[in-house]
Amino acid sequence: MKDSTKNKKKYKVRIVSHGKTISAKKGDLLADKIQNAGINLCVYCNKKGLCGKCLVKIVKGYLPSPNKMEKRLLGKKRLNENYRLACQYRIQGSLRIEVPPEAIFQETPVLTAGIKSPVSVDPAVKKYYLKIEKPRPTNPRSYLELIQRYLGGEHIDFPHNIAKITPEIFKKAKSKVTAVVYKDHELLDVEPFDTSNENYGVALDVGTSTVVVELIDLNSGNTIDNLSTANSQVKYGWDVISRIGFAVSKSENLQKLRKTILEDVNQLIEKILASHQIHPHSVYEIVMAGNTVMNHLLLGIPVDSLAGSPYNSVFSVLPSMYSREIGFNINKNGKVYIVPNIKSFIGGDVSAGLMASNFINKKGCYLFIDLGTNGEIVLKHKNKITATSTAAGPAFEGMNMSCGMLAHSGAVYGAEYDKGIKVFTLNHKPPVGICGTGFIDLISIFLDREFINTRGTIKGKSKKLSVADNLHVTQNDIREMQLAIAAIKTGIQMMLEENHLSPENLDGIYLGGAFGNYINVKNTIKIGLLPPIDKQKVSILGNSSLAGAKGLMLSQSSRKKTEYSIKKIRYFSLASNPDFQQNFLNSLYFGKRGRIKNMSGKKT
Amino acid sequence: MKDSTKNKKKYKVRIVSHGKTISAKKGDLLADKIQNAGINLCVYCNKKGLCGKCLVKIVKGYLPSPNKMEKRLLGKKRLNENYRLACQYRIQGSLRIEVPPEAIFQETPVLTAGIKSPVSVDPAVKKYYLKIEKPRPTNPRSYLELIQRYLGGEHIDFPHNIAKITPEIFKKAKSKVTAVVYKDHELLDVEPFDTSNENYGVALDVGTSTVVVELIDLNSGNTIDNLSTANSQVKYGWDVISRIGFAVSKSENLQKLRKTILEDVNQLIEKILASHQIHPHSVYEIVMAGNTVMNHLLLGIPVDSLAGSPYNSVFSVLPSMYSREIGFNINKNGKVYIVPNIKSFIGGDVSAGLMASNFINKKGCYLFIDLGTNGEIVLKHKNKITATSTAAGPAFEGMNMSCGMLAHSGAVYGAEYDKGIKVFTLNHKPPVGICGTGFIDLISIFLDREFINTRGTIKGKSKKLSVADNLHVTQNDIREMQLAIAAIKTGIQMMLEENHLSPENLDGIYLGGAFGNYINVKNTIKIGLLPPIDKQKVSILGNSSLAGAKGLMLSQSSRKKTEYSIKKIRYFSLASNPDFQQNFLNSLYFGKRGRIKNMSGKKT
Repeated sequence: MKDSTKNKKKYKVRIVSHGKTISAKKGDLLADKIQNAGINLCVYCNKKGLCGKCLVKIVKGYLPSPNKMEKRLLGKKRLNENYRLACQYRIQGSLRIEVPPEAIFQETPVLTAGIKSPVSVDPAVKKYYLKIEKPRPTNPRSYLELIQRYLGGEHIDFPHNIAKITPEIFKKAKSKVTAVVYKDHELLDVEPFDTSNENYGVALDVGTSTVVVELIDLNSGNTIDNLSTANSQVKYGWDVISRIGFAVSKSENLQKLRKTILEDVNQLIEKILASHQIHPHSVYEIVMAGNTVMNHLLLGIPVDSLAGSPYNSVFSVLPSMYSREIGFNINKNGKVYIVPNIKSFIGGDVSAGLMASNFINKKGCYLFIDLGTNGEIVLKHKNKITATSTAAGPAFEGMNMSCGMLAHSGAVYGAEYDKGIKVFTLNHKPPVGICGTGFIDLISIFLDREFINTRGTIKGKSKKLSVADNLHVTQNDIREMQLAIAAIKTGIQMMLEENHLSPENLDGIYLGGAFGNYINVKNTIKIGLLPPIDKQKVSILGNSSLAGAKGLMLSQSSRKKTEYSIKKIRYFSLASNPDFQQNFLNSLYFGKRGRIKNMSGKKT
Repeated sequence: MKDSTKNKKKYKVRIVSHGKTISAKKGDLLADKIQNAGINLCVYCNKKGLCGKCLVKIVKGYLPSPNKMEKRLLGKKRLNENYRLACQYRIQGSLRIEVPPEAIFQETPVLTAGIKSPVSVDPAVKKYYLKIEKPRPTNPRSYLELIQRYLGGEHIDFPHNIAKITPEIFKKAKSKVTAVVYKDHELLDVEPFDTSNENYGVALDVGTSTVVVELIDLNSGNTIDNLSTANSQVKYGWDVISRIGFAVSKSENLQKLRKTILEDVNQLIEKILASHQIHPHSVYEIVMAGNTVMNHLLLGIPVDSLAGSPYNSVFSVLPSMYSREIGFNINKNGKVYIVPNIKSFIGGDVSAGLMASNFINKKGCYLFIDLGTNGEIVLKHKNKITATSTAAGPAFEGMNMSCGMLAHSGAVYGAEYDKGIKVFTLNHKPPVGICGTGFIDLISIFLDREFINTRGTIKGKSKKLSVADNLHVTQNDIREMQLAIAAIKTGIQMMLEENHLSPENLDGIYLGGAFGNYINVKNTIKIGLLPPIDKQKVSILGNSSLAGAKGLMLSQSSRKKTEYSIKKIRYFSLASNPDFQQNFLNSLYFGKRGRIKNMSGKKT
């Protein structure tokens, strides 16, 4: 067979706005060619001619009559100025075009703190304004069939509750309606007239202590606002372990926990929407990242299996749900996506953090660490990703400490020594307590000044060390920190060891979780919580869970990639490793001491 | 590149049980080869090694060690007798095998009356009994991940309400569970222990006058029982037109109609299940065929658009729903499939009838006719299918007739003349009224005996003709029948004319709908309701709507084919055709008279 493409004449397309020239063949789609040239052309509707965003000006060359969709979307003025849709333009000869700035998608920084990764805005929920012709007696197409045709796809599904409201909307708006479409295949809602500008989503980070929502404009990808509150479940237990204990102790407790967190989230959503005059009806998706226990509890799924060995969860990946099934007060046909859990206690918050830091795609050897009551550690080395979790206890959150507190106003979050201990407090308020990062700095000072030895014992006869007026660190506080640090340290060391790696092999460490916000990396390395590496290699991600939830809200491909990648993560069980106990004891020493006993039993 | 397959040695596989020999290459899947040989090997689980149904005995040749799945499914005795699963067997050399009868699927007659079409049993809902290993501490897989692995697919979705019950079931049944899977991709339920034998579905025919349920064993494809009742909506109107009128007259009426029919269906289901000691929990799917108005009303979807021109419906195809969304009392995660509407008043009952009669695949020129208050007419000619509907009025159902009644006990359903009119009644009860088919026979006799002329006028001075004690046919009754017959006759004639066909071109007529059960084909042709063709060419389908619903319940591929085919059916609008009125008037004559005025305006 003769290859007809070989004989096709090549044409030149000059993109004057970008100073680029590309070659093309007859019949090529202009949108494809512009994208291939490395220009981030906006193709919101996947080149179906529905969104009207990929407009280009034909400066010279073949100018076709505008088609139906171009007439509808571009308007007379633009058409007279020779604008056409690149996704509807088949190349017929050489030409010169301009791609206006509005046709280029803006790179959106995903993280609110820490690193920023640009993603194109491709949310799961999209809105299309449609002016639909009325059905004719000679071809009485059903309303939903008409919408389907205007959306250009036979594969668009219609939940039957949409069918119920559609006739009324058509009547009210005289066939001018806005279709809300999920993942290009399901109609979520039909609204009267043009509401395509009102398309919002909520990224949700449900932590054991804190709940944060971020309101996002799904069209632009921009964050409008965020808001946080304490997780009211704390009244049933400070940490995940005590929440599990509460949940399994009585049959109705699971529902109590579910309702409590649901109310927290709904109140945050209500507040943030009210302050921006946005109706809950216009919010079509929630992407929730939380640890394994939090996402089980929010869905009302039993956590009994997380209460004891082998600590397996009920689910990892769940398909998207409707908001009404969960009880979220947004559009009742809105969708809820739960960022999948990796395994056991390594939850969706970690998956989200890996997404936000682009961890999976990194070349080299990297650690991702999320510090909290449970410490999660993920190691990437070559193409292998290993993950573990270790119970650090509540010391990093200031719990069980004589002057400990969460990182709220007035908490000592940092300290340095300059002729005496100088403390830094949150919001510059007078010191009222010490939070996790404060303890790290203080212990570092105590070691430097030799107030304590590497075994953590306070020198002299005193049982406590004064920090500020009414604030002190007791011997017991130091013991609690030693246990917490040792848990993480052992985890990191055994993970490295098992992969025949040492800290020198690490190209970088990502520190996720709210804990990282106020951390002094140098001191963290000094006391041995982080392995001895160049502090420049440590990146503080901030709330990587929320950032990841936002990223996954704005990028359909990231969801697929994340789901695919986390399935391949290998679980490394610390607790069932026979060397764990001994290594943990060795790790109780501060600093570099207490190195790991390797798996073969030989000291390194 | 060298084609490695070309050099592969060919082996012989002798299927001794079937006297067939086939050739195969190394590595070929035995199940594929058996199927290619034209043997209906049962591959219920799509060759995933889950169902254990494709067992074969290796009489001579390579006998591999049984794998995990074979051990689980075949048991020691079978394995020792050299049985293996054909879907797990890769050919290594020539061999002799036996395919036992239990590994062959039984062809199931779909229709309870009329023609029978064999289909392989491939229901959308399947059950698999799984003995799952407990999660290990070194790899704490989630419960749902474990089920997924045992079902052999990463693409199996889990609704979150399944996640809620799963831990309890695992605990109760010690990891021995039955998974209920929908279309090989969604877990509908997890049940403790082995319940794979209890897998039921309900085919549902919702007619304007009558509702019928058929209880089906989804594993065997056999009908267990069926049951019918009058549609209680009749209290709101006799026919679809009056129901629409009622629905649109007041906002709460739509819900009244929905609840009424829902209760009818739920009561039928409850009764039929109780009489067979089947728990509603074990019913996982309902396939419903109904006319456009009935399926809108049952789902609570407004019918306003069906009240006037252009008579468009709200939906044609709907994705499957959960039973709990509709309110059916079966398993709450059970599915509901609505047989899609074709267009306007040509509803799911017609789609189901086309499926049951294999109409779409017929070669030649065929008519499908469903007689009722609305007459639906479908014409297949070459690859083109055209459909229309015509308002026949309630005469065929005995309404508005002086002695008319529905086809219930004591109704005159037929008559002949032998020295006087002799009537036949349903259940041989004394005659209490006349139903549609009875009127056809009586009019035929009146014409034969010249009691009436072809214009339908009673000869002589009498205004009525006596039929039996207290039963008579009035001049007005005859006029009503003339209108009903003329509507169908005009529809058929104009459809044929528009396709440049005449009755002689017809290879067959399928008569669907309950009306067909007692019809005398010869008389129906004589009075002109059916076109003049050899009566042998007319097939009476009986309740083709129910038969189609059953067929679509048992065959996933039929659903796809039906959805695909009905989209391509062209709508032919009678009412908007300028010649309709004149043709209708011409058709009021009984018999062959009153032939059609063709589209160009010339009399044929």
